[in-house]
Amino acid sequence: MTEPKILDSLFQPKSIAVVGASASTVSGGNRFIRNLRAFGYAGPIYPVHPSAGEIEGLPVFASLEALPETVDYAYVATAAERVPGVIRSGRGKVRVAQVMSSGFGETQEGDALQRDLLAAARDANVRVVGPNCLGVYSPRARVSFTRRVTDEAGHVGVVCQSGGLGTDIIRRGQQRGLRFSGLVTIGNAVDVSASELLEYFLADEQTRVIGMYLESARDGRRLFEVLRQAGCRKPVVLLKGGGTAQGRRAASSHTGALAGSEQAWAALGKQTGMPIVDTLDEFLDVLLLCQCLLPRSQPTRTVALFGNGGGTSVLGTDACGRAGFAVPPFAADTLAALEALKLPAGSSVLNPVDVPAGALQQNEGRAATDIVRILAQDDSIDAVIIHANMTVITDFQHVDMLKNIIAAVTQARQHGRGVAHLILVLRSDGDAEIEERKRGYRRDSVQAGIPVFNEIAEAAKALACLRVIEAVRCRRAQPSIPVDGRSRSAPESASQAS
Amino acid sequence: MTEPKILDSLFQPKSIAVVGASASTVSGGNRFIRNLRAFGYAGPIYPVHPSAGEIEGLPVFASLEALPETVDYAYVATAAERVPGVIRSGRGKVRVAQVMSSGFGETQEGDALQRDLLAAARDANVRVVGPNCLGVYSPRARVSFTRRVTDEAGHVGVVCQSGGLGTDIIRRGQQRGLRFSGLVTIGNAVDVSASELLEYFLADEQTRVIGMYLESARDGRRLFEVLRQAGCRKPVVLLKGGGTAQGRRAASSHTGALAGSEQAWAALGKQTGMPIVDTLDEFLDVLLLCQCLLPRSQPTRTVALFGNGGGTSVLGTDACGRAGFAVPPFAADTLAALEALKLPAGSSVLNPVDVPAGALQQNEGRAATDIVRILAQDDSIDAVIIHANMTVITDFQHVDMLKNIIAAVTQARQHGRGVAHLILVLRSDGDAEIEERKRGYRRDSVQAGIPVFNEIAEAAKALACLRVIEAVRCRRAQPSIPVDGRSRSAPESASQAS
Repeated sequence: MTEPKILDSLFQPKSIAVVGASASTVSGGNRFIRNLRAFGYAGPIYPVHPSAGEIEGLPVFASLEALPETVDYAYVATAAERVPGVIRSGRGKVRVAQVMSSGFGETQEGDALQRDLLAAARDANVRVVGPNCLGVYSPRARVSFTRRVTDEAGHVGVVCQSGGLGTDIIRRGQQRGLRFSGLVTIGNAVDVSASELLEYFLADEQTRVIGMYLESARDGRRLFEVLRQAGCRKPVVLLKGGGTAQGRRAASSHTGALAGSEQAWAALGKQTGMPIVDTLDEFLDVLLLCQCLLPRSQPTRTVALFGNGGGTSVLGTDACGRAGFAVPPFAADTLAALEALKLPAGSSVLNPVDVPAGALQQNEGRAATDIVRILAQDDSIDAVIIHANMTVITDFQHVDMLKNIIAAVTQARQHGRGVAHLILVLRSDGDAEIEERKRGYRRDSVQAGIPVFNEIAEAAKALACLRVIEAVRCRRAQPSIPVDGRSRSAPESASQAS
Repeated sequence: MTEPKILDSLFQPKSIAVVGASASTVSGGNRFIRNLRAFGYAGPIYPVHPSAGEIEGLPVFASLEALPETVDYAYVATAAERVPGVIRSGRGKVRVAQVMSSGFGETQEGDALQRDLLAAARDANVRVVGPNCLGVYSPRARVSFTRRVTDEAGHVGVVCQSGGLGTDIIRRGQQRGLRFSGLVTIGNAVDVSASELLEYFLADEQTRVIGMYLESARDGRRLFEVLRQAGCRKPVVLLKGGGTAQGRRAASSHTGALAGSEQAWAALGKQTGMPIVDTLDEFLDVLLLCQCLLPRSQPTRTVALFGNGGGTSVLGTDACGRAGFAVPPFAADTLAALEALKLPAGSSVLNPVDVPAGALQQNEGRAATDIVRILAQDDSIDAVIIHANMTVITDFQHVDMLKNIIAAVTQARQHGRGVAHLILVLRSDGDAEIEERKRGYRRDSVQAGIPVFNEIAEAAKALACLRVIEAVRCRRAQPSIPVDGRSRSAPESASQAS
């Protein structure tokens, strides 16, 4: 439909040049080549070096000019002062160059060099990502700048101004069940900007959810325009670095960023339906929620809590309240259905539903699945958060209750009216054995489309971010011009993947 | 010095009676007896049952009256309606009875029964803990109501209105390095109150830090008086359940609590120097911080951040700012000392100090320890937060840098002027192997008196809670009546363990 985009060269490169690998030591360039091969990259890799005969067993080219073809992607990790020259030599031979080298605008002395780098990029008609970044992770193309990463591709696209944090997002994210369409680290972002990459992910069919870690506001106006035009058709979440005055100072020596005020970012987020979070964990939580759940046609307001643990239920109810959610009394028929289960003393079937682990095992664990089914059918409930104290549940070993609950939630999603968000909270004490079991349940659950969180408060905060998106989508879905007497359809019908 | 306190019977019982164990099935009473024995309780255990001949291999007594001696502690887990009778029969035979049974004031129907229980306690001169609770964990006496708990005694005393949460506090807490002088769950707290237990822990020499999870405000006035008189001589931290209106409703069906308003609690906390937190994880974080660190004589204001990861440093600086801490530029001599280390490009020796993992390995890992030493010696810095990205550091295996850092911090604590709080943040991606390594480092670190957190933001929040304590101690340390021309000594000299 559309012609190939220049940024496809970044996420799906057909060939790659590497400037800055060494024949004698193991430099960043060498590690990149090793990572590419270990990850299964299938295209040609061209090491570029003025004198070496062979690098990592590959034939070497003396310069970018000497390459046998135009490469999509050049990885440039040479001394900073040499970089503009390298870029100029890429004219006609390189579509996108990613510059790893640091020593540019993030230091006072590097300002002039950064201007020269940009001039070189324009002169040579080479698009530059970076400098002062780490690279690209694109599992669909088997490209990765780092090790220990999954080759399963997914639907989450990330633009990250920090390389180290980008690595954390991939690694911690994949442990939580995130799967990526791609992640790019942009460092000082001298040429290819966050907003351009955002546009790319918005148009990319593989990408359904977008996350950004940004320190700089240089790109703010265009970012706003892109987000406004996108109209929340894909969830976009922002992790903002430099939200405080002293954080902005730190950002300035990290990526040379000129960060805007926290208020300006908050206003941008609210207007465009882009939730803004402060920590890596919140960021991953919201991405996971959006990977698993579609926004509802109305903003989420009411939550049902169900699990084992009275104090946990009280604190969870508080946490939902602080996140702006009501944990309201149930409708009469829901309450009647719960009471008909005749749960033993110590249970409470008001909202929050608090049932001891022992009681949940009734009828080979069907008590828990019955409760999930009943709660998911209550139209007045927008989200059901099911929490399990893994330590306590693990003490009762004759029924795999969590497996049953995951099956019940999966069934409720498939056969229910499909309105309530269904969320699982697996509470662990950190014991190695419990953590191992949790990994398994988390994997199964996320594969079934059920997001998993560590605590109720974290689920509630993530859900509040999804509500920001729902609110703007809902506002936009209101009919501005009545057509043939009917309202426009609910926002869900605006397919996320379009 | 002081006569034995009645609550010693709870935390150091010389003999225990169990009402509600069964000869034919495994009830809560049976599990309690099994837990006691597995945990190594050395005193006599007397099962009480009207007809059974033997329970868990122990001779049975037909009633409390029939016991061969007066017991310190009776565990009562019989049907709710029988409990007042059981308590009356304990006259002269039981000092403290802990009532596990539920069905009292937490339900509308149980109100009268709860009043009768209290009357029985008064009539029989038996102190009652509960009802509707789980029990006591007292490693020094080898008493525990739950399994999978450490028998290492420590200095953290906890009063917990929820049994399930009490279990979480012990289990999740011990994984984080907390060691307890005792934990008691109090449920509806009809007789022995939170404030009475707080007084006990304040006087108890084994206890140096106190945590409370409370849902009820019934005891609020006395709590305030106890806290005011204690004058922050031991840190007290409150996890408040029912902080929101809907949370209060949930608390009412959990423990029959009449919770006060969030504002009233906040005022109490501020006046008495008792930090109030909202989540279990924050609660454990603050307890760990107070287990490891002594309050400073002036409230903590300035933080130095040091670790690997630029984005993480920026977000960490923001987190410190949001928690009310400055991450200020270093004094000239500190900066000069850091610059003299000649760290490679990509490092920043401004505050936050951000050094790539590879560079930290310089000189067999001495670069990192040099930085810790320099920062700990800067008098203008009140706290040093050292963060390590475990995943990245683990990639460089030839030097055990974290071991070096822990040694450097330990040394700085011992030999430095000892003013700065030294805190370690071990950032993991959740991978099983990394987590296993983290467990080891966390254990070593906490044993050396260095608190360990998962993220900088969490460390900063915990430190802000310690600042609440420091502020009130500092205020109280101001001389009200000048004596012999000198000010009163700084609060540190008021020994925590006194």
